[in-house]
Amino acid sequence: MDAFELRVLGYVRSPLTDPAHAPRQGDEGAPDAVLELDASVQPALAGLETGMAVVVLTWLHLGDRDTLAVHPRDDRSRPLTGVFATRSPDRPNPIGLHRCEVLAVDGSRLTVRGLEAVDGTPVVDVKIALGDVGER
Amino acid sequence: MDAFELRVLGYVRSPLTDPAHAPRQGDEGAPDAVLELDASVQPALAGLETGMAVVVLTWLHLGDRDTLAVHPRDDRSRPLTGVFATRSPDRPNPIGLHRCEVLAVDGSRLTVRGLEAVDGTPVVDVKIALGDVGER
Repeated sequence: MDAFELRVLGYVRSPLTDPAHAPRQGDEGAPDAVLELDASVQPALAGLETGMAVVVLTWLHLGDRDTLAVHPRDDRSRPLTGVFATRSPDRPNPIGLHRCEVLAVDGSRLTVRGLEAVDGTPVVDVKIALGDVGER
Repeated sequence: MDAFELRVLGYVRSPLTDPAHAPRQGDEGAPDAVLELDASVQPALAGLETGMAVVVLTWLHLGDRDTLAVHPRDDRSRPLTGVFATRSPDRPNPIGLHRCEVLAVDGSRLTVRGLEAVDGTPVVDVKIALGDVGER
């Protein structure tokens, strides 16, 4: 298979340190977190403001890349399901998607609400969340 | 900076061939498309069914990885904006996010509605779209 080089642009700084205690999704009780980005990408933050909705993309470095099927949400009563039909961190390319709200931008530090990734998780992209077609 | 290896899991097959003619987002008039995935990841599709909403992640191979700011939607009347505040394909890690509807699953081929990526775009992940917390 072909491959591309995914560059780590920064890291999550969060009070969450244990994946077993992290909420499964950002809207299930995640704390505020800081994305400490590399100074070289600071210009890419221009235009982000408090209150904006963004999608943060992370590399879920604790995920198992050889897993193709799981019991959703680790619930053994749910049938084994292909990882493409789940949000499991175990998948061939463990990219995490996190819809968050911007709380503050300070240099190359972006503080967000609603990020369930643990401290030290690599950040690979940030995108504005899409609203209605007319707002783009 | 650190880096990870992003594996290409398959390719988009679409009547869209010219980026200049592709819609900017999937809900702006994208045609049906087929994700031709590698046979090795077919088990990861188990559980996907017609009508489900998924997020397809692509590698926007035509994107410029050195671009950090753009005029949104190529509109010069809009101020230069950091790429993290946009959905530009030009960005350090050109990952595309596409919310699509599953039309059919046939072996390792996944047919979807609403994918604006051009023919030949590499596919790197598929995830179920999140509904309300109670549906997870």
